[in-house]
Amino acid sequence: MSAPKKVVLAYSGGLDTSIILKWLQTEYGCEVITFTADLGQGEELEPARAKAELLGIKPENIHIEDVREEFVRDFVFPMFRANAVYEGLYLLGTSIARPLISKRLVEIAHEHGADAVAHGATGKGNDQVRFELSAYALDPMIKVIAPWREWDLTSRTKLIEFAEQNQIPIAKDKRGEAPFSVDANLLHTSSEGKALENPADEAPDYVYQRTVSPEEAPDTPEYIEVTFEKGDAVAINGEALSPATILTALNECGRKHGIGRLDFVENRFVGMKSRGIYETPGGTILLEAHRGIEQITLDAGAGHLKDSLMPRYAELIYNGFWFSPEREMLQALIDKSQENVTGTVRLKLYKGSVHCVGRWSDYSLYSEKHVTFEEDAGAYDQKDAAGFIRLNALRLKLIATRNARVKK
Amino acid sequence: MSAPKKVVLAYSGGLDTSIILKWLQTEYGCEVITFTADLGQGEELEPARAKAELLGIKPENIHIEDVREEFVRDFVFPMFRANAVYEGLYLLGTSIARPLISKRLVEIAHEHGADAVAHGATGKGNDQVRFELSAYALDPMIKVIAPWREWDLTSRTKLIEFAEQNQIPIAKDKRGEAPFSVDANLLHTSSEGKALENPADEAPDYVYQRTVSPEEAPDTPEYIEVTFEKGDAVAINGEALSPATILTALNECGRKHGIGRLDFVENRFVGMKSRGIYETPGGTILLEAHRGIEQITLDAGAGHLKDSLMPRYAELIYNGFWFSPEREMLQALIDKSQENVTGTVRLKLYKGSVHCVGRWSDYSLYSEKHVTFEEDAGAYDQKDAAGFIRLNALRLKLIATRNARVKK
Amino acid sequence: MSAPKKVVLAYSGGLDTSIILKWLQTEYGCEVITFTADLGQGEELEPARAKAELLGIKPENIHIEDVREEFVRDFVFPMFRANAVYEGLYLLGTSIARPLISKRLVEIAHEHGADAVAHGATGKGNDQVRFELSAYALDPMIKVIAPWREWDLTSRTKLIEFAEQNQIPIAKDKRGEAPFSVDANLLHTSSEGKALENPADEAPDYVYQRTVSPEEAPDTPEYIEVTFEKGDAVAINGEALSPATILTALNECGRKHGIGRLDFVENRFVGMKSRGIYETPGGTILLEAHRGIEQITLDAGAGHLKDSLMPRYAELIYNGFWFSPEREMLQALIDKSQENVTGTVRLKLYKGSVHCVGRWSDYSLYSEKHVTFEEDAGAYDQKDAAGFIRLNALRLKLIATRNARVKK
Amino acid sequence: MSAPKKVVLAYSGGLDTSIILKWLQTEYGCEVITFTADLGQGEELEPARAKAELLGIKPENIHIEDVREEFVRDFVFPMFRANAVYEGLYLLGTSIARPLISKRLVEIAHEHGADAVAHGATGKGNDQVRFELSAYALDPMIKVIAPWREWDLTSRTKLIEFAEQNQIPIAKDKRGEAPFSVDANLLHTSSEGKALENPADEAPDYVYQRTVSPEEAPDTPEYIEVTFEKGDAVAINGEALSPATILTALNECGRKHGIGRLDFVENRFVGMKSRGIYETPGGTILLEAHRGIEQITLDAGAGHLKDSLMPRYAELIYNGFWFSPEREMLQALIDKSQENVTGTVRLKLYKGSVHCVGRWSDYSLYSEKHVTFEEDAGAYDQKDAAGFIRLNALRLKLIATRNARVKK
Repeated sequence: MSAPKKVVLAYSGGLDTSIILKWLQTEYGCEVITFTADLGQGEELEPARAKAELLGIKPENIHIEDVREEFVRDFVFPMFRANAVYEGLYLLGTSIARPLISKRLVEIAHEHGADAVAHGATGKGNDQVRFELSAYALDPMIKVIAPWREWDLTSRTKLIEFAEQNQIPIAKDKRGEAPFSVDANLLHTSSEGKALENPADEAPDYVYQRTVSPEEAPDTPEYIEVTFEKGDAVAINGEALSPATILTALNECGRKHGIGRLDFVENRFVGMKSRGIYETPGGTILLEAHRGIEQITLDAGAGHLKDSLMPRYAELIYNGFWFSPEREMLQALIDKSQENVTGTVRLKLYKGSVHCVGRWSDYSLYSEKHVTFEEDAGAYDQKDAAGFIRLNALRLKLIATRNARVKK
Repeated sequence: MSAPKKVVLAYSGGLDTSIILKWLQTEYGCEVITFTADLGQGEELEPARAKAELLGIKPENIHIEDVREEFVRDFVFPMFRANAVYEGLYLLGTSIARPLISKRLVEIAHEHGADAVAHGATGKGNDQVRFELSAYALDPMIKVIAPWREWDLTSRTKLIEFAEQNQIPIAKDKRGEAPFSVDANLLHTSSEGKALENPADEAPDYVYQRTVSPEEAPDTPEYIEVTFEKGDAVAINGEALSPATILTALNECGRKHGIGRLDFVENRFVGMKSRGIYETPGGTILLEAHRGIEQITLDAGAGHLKDSLMPRYAELIYNGFWFSPEREMLQALIDKSQENVTGTVRLKLYKGSVHCVGRWSDYSLYSEKHVTFEEDAGAYDQKDAAGFIRLNALRLKLIATRNARVKK
Repeated sequence: MSAPKKVVLAYSGGLDTSIILKWLQTEYGCEVITFTADLGQGEELEPARAKAELLGIKPENIHIEDVREEFVRDFVFPMFRANAVYEGLYLLGTSIARPLISKRLVEIAHEHGADAVAHGATGKGNDQVRFELSAYALDPMIKVIAPWREWDLTSRTKLIEFAEQNQIPIAKDKRGEAPFSVDANLLHTSSEGKALENPADEAPDYVYQRTVSPEEAPDTPEYIEVTFEKGDAVAINGEALSPATILTALNECGRKHGIGRLDFVENRFVGMKSRGIYETPGGTILLEAHRGIEQITLDAGAGHLKDSLMPRYAELIYNGFWFSPEREMLQALIDKSQENVTGTVRLKLYKGSVHCVGRWSDYSLYSEKHVTFEEDAGAYDQKDAAGFIRLNALRLKLIATRNARVKK
Repeated sequence: MSAPKKVVLAYSGGLDTSIILKWLQTEYGCEVITFTADLGQGEELEPARAKAELLGIKPENIHIEDVREEFVRDFVFPMFRANAVYEGLYLLGTSIARPLISKRLVEIAHEHGADAVAHGATGKGNDQVRFELSAYALDPMIKVIAPWREWDLTSRTKLIEFAEQNQIPIAKDKRGEAPFSVDANLLHTSSEGKALENPADEAPDYVYQRTVSPEEAPDTPEYIEVTFEKGDAVAINGEALSPATILTALNECGRKHGIGRLDFVENRFVGMKSRGIYETPGGTILLEAHRGIEQITLDAGAGHLKDSLMPRYAELIYNGFWFSPEREMLQALIDKSQENVTGTVRLKLYKGSVHCVGRWSDYSLYSEKHVTFEEDAGAYDQKDAAGFIRLNALRLKLIATRNARVKK
């Protein structure tokens, strides 16, 4: 790889990416453009601008954007149409944000004629893979710089030293080791590392930053109604809201009732296991709601096909293959299934859990006429079941006959 | 089908199967043998014996058996090794009991030289399919009688009339329509029909018979530890227990904390949707526990393969194909994966939810040495990730290059 | 089912469907509308018109249509995009024609205000299922009459008797039993039954009607080139042709070289096995050609996802679920994959086999620069492979380490 | 990686691995142990011994073994039970040999207390991955040396120079560039690279080394019978043979009739496409034979499950994951399915193609009684099909009803 000349950095404004910024300037001698996104992580972005300026970035090279609507509309919602869950439990909150960041990094690189992008993910995790696969898929000629895999700033002491030598301001609480590492966006907050590394030990309560504990949640359940159109949530309690606004509102519901906490050991794409503490308050509600509306609007053929492909779809997103032909093929299949996933569900929120307790839709496939215990006046002839069973049994009978024959 | 001469009836001792018993005697003029199983449904069985005798069944033709250990050991536990869940949420509590009943019906038929078995499932549901596919798979020559599909006793009035004409005792509360129908065994209780038929309406609290409501559950969480060997639970809080005893103990934990309630609309195999209220207290805990121990003892290759096949496995059980080559093939795959699923998980039970908060095992694949944020002295070379990503990206780059070329 | 008043019959003009026609008139007393389609079966259709008139059908009730282009464009080609093969070998030639016939039956029923459709498939085969599932999916209120399942004309003698009583002309060669049964359309000819029922015996050569035997095929290979656009064949040897014309031309190539014969035992949807002799000359060439062009235009992610879903897709078509949500979902996925499946393949035809021996495309993903044994000037860094392998191996190493540890 | 002290080299006796041998001695200064396996590649092995001795390897460090029976019994046959085919066409002839070689390399390393193994695969191909994943899975502490990824002997000129400097004998025909590269074992011969790199050009006939061309094959078909037990071939024309002997005999049949040639463009695991010419004479016959016997001994449930998992199983073998939990899980599933795959097939071999034309078995599930066009005296009630179809159609009807309703 020839040396990069101009690089777009995914810049949070924090100490680590500030060190990267400086390191890129000094190590590679390249011009740095910063990209700071509001993905709903709950931090103000203007300090990132000030800090970038302080570190010598030209104003026209500082990009600060609110991408929350795009994030929910084009990434979170398509993923929830699939009921995507990684390894049975994880709602993919970090995974789904990375491709959007890479997409903007590459687009900004093209605007500026930059030949490289850089990110602050380490060489042990999944995020490096997600950032880089997305970048390469969008621009096969782009260079990607991952300083954590390259530099020798391999301890906190060395990092602080580098920061001091380079006049990078250091917040007081960043001098020492953080007890664990945090990532957040509108969909979730994840915490991992250090104090959380032993999967046998319960995570201490102070790790949870996004939700009250179930024990402290209200003693009275709350009911909400979520309305869907073609698989996407469009209204809460009858009020139409934009994608990001809906997720924000569901987050508030989830936070209040202690919903969406997960203590999890997962398999990273790079081959090791890691333990994470995840909080996905609104997403957990959204998943239950979406499953509820699918219960009455999808038939078995569509539903079971989706279910059987979900693990693969989730794995693709987890592993960083959002911008891949196979993810897009699966998305086409999933989106096709959602054409009639329209209607409303009623949810009960209480002390850490959310349950669908009612669902209705003009598009419902539920037929009381067919299912009723009452005499049903011809909708369904029970005698049909005899033939149905006999033909389903035929091959099993032939096997049993064969087995009896050969055992003689 | 020629007329059956001797039939083994799945007999609960209740009004409906008593009517069937009598109807078989009068309609087909055949000798009836009764089979009443203790599957953990929580009812005494001796009254069934007395009632069968009252209806003229010879003592040697009355079979009453406690099959709880066999049920959990040979049916429930193998199924939980797969983390089987139907349509994302249903733990298959009714489905998994049917094949065992059919197996005993056929075995008893062979002992008695009977040529038929009979069951009390209706022509609209899944249970008829499960009973009959199992019976045919075990004996291709057996006849199956499903009175609900044949007779003209199609209303409660006619049933009561038939009972009165045939001196079948009728409990007072059975004269009128039950507000809904109930099935129970050691794994779960299901309620459906009539009052529950509108899926838009929340099920009233009195429907739940097996668990306290989360609101009435203790205000303080309880922690328990479950130990697994080769995928099966073998001890609670360090005390070794038999399969049925473990499930009984977990049921008590779940009952007390309001765990395992489910309001669900599902796709029946016979083509219609139905709504059920399920309570699976111990099973819900067991599933969370099993997932927890798999998190540290299964690698990604094994875990993801299992995950991707689970929906199909669950569908097979739901549809009644327990005794089929494909279920047995999947079971061989799943059992192979469980050889090292041994260890202990710690669970938190609180007001309707159960969460794994710790797990440990001699068989753990979790490697703190690899995952740590600390410098790791050679266990993992972060530079390897660059090559890993670049080769994973290669095909995506080739696609992007192609796409750019053809767009020109 | 209340008695049908007006019925649209899938009418071939042959003896069997003429008997059905008369039986519908006499048994049900209903008005009969005939539908005769040219699907490329290679028979003239006007005799069917004459015969229908002779049997008393009003001219305005006789529908004769050439649907060959629709058949290939909307049914055969979408299926070949998937490389669909049932049970490893069968190209689904009969299966794919049924939904089109049902679609037209239902459409004509709507035009005429008919309340029923009828077909001549027996109660043992797959075709009844395919006809009826399609009809019900397109009109849930339609009645379907399947005389072979209803009437008592259960032997050839009774059929001939009925024909004679009803003045139905009987061709001389139809008086006796045919040695086997034949179905044909533009995609294939199938032969089954009677003389072919023993799967141990080689089918006699006279069974094959559509292809010369490989032994009689030319002694010199022939080369042809087939061009694809977005997954569909559009030209042969550079000459642009319509869908049906292309398949016709490929059939001629295949016929001449003895290509596409298959002696097969398959699992019917209704639970039994059957043995069929299939001839799919053009389709066999088309499949090899399509695979050839996909080899250079699809990447591994897209290709492997398609491959893994193909058996399910083929099973859906075989079982009659063309008009189902899950087939349409899979089609959306498959069609998405075909966007760049454009290019040309060169095929060698010789004595029963067809092989792709060359393929080229502007959309090719093949990169000689990457794959070459020569030094490649930076396109690919072989050292990347070391990291790629090490991270792919990491979980395997962790397993081996665990296994060694617990064995001590 | 610390420097290896003693290394086991996969040694063919050819120029390239002789250069590697010397390079390991000079570059790493380590003791070299050679392993030369007879996998049926058709070369004498004693020259490899002589050459190893010439290059200074101590006699006790030279391992020459005939592993043909183990190869076929424990690798080829288990794979053929699955009908494994990569990307629709490739029979995995190279892929399946690598894990066995790695297994012996690691075992010999353990015997000698060696700390490393080495192989002669390049950094662009799949074989490096297969060798190394297998080695790491069997010994997580083993070092693997892949000289082609490390050294600077990157051109033929440099290699020849190194050989001359190190007194390595060079056969005359090895001085220049070979027109393509060849790999062979009992299952297949593959040719790739250089002259074959353009996938548009037909491979010249001299590339094929293992089979006559179909044009030159006998003008008369030959029939053979292959007998299977539990999925494995055990006899040809009634003569019981060992695994390797059977494959050898089938190879001779295939060679003579020009069977098993494949011109193929495939997706390598490392991300690029490559073009290979494969000859798998006996394997191609074996696959057709195995499919034939499965046609009558496997039911649809077992067969379709196998079919749906085959692509994943083949991909695992292609990618080098033979020694992985997921391959072993799939193998358990496949082996379970083969318990009754016992019987005999009759095959017709003629000018490049092989077709199953008859199959019979005591374990057959084929029931002439059920499938016959004749009246069948009660084995099958055609009226059952009506109920079967109506219940299969129910969900489609409910969808159609819904769709009609919402369109109003």
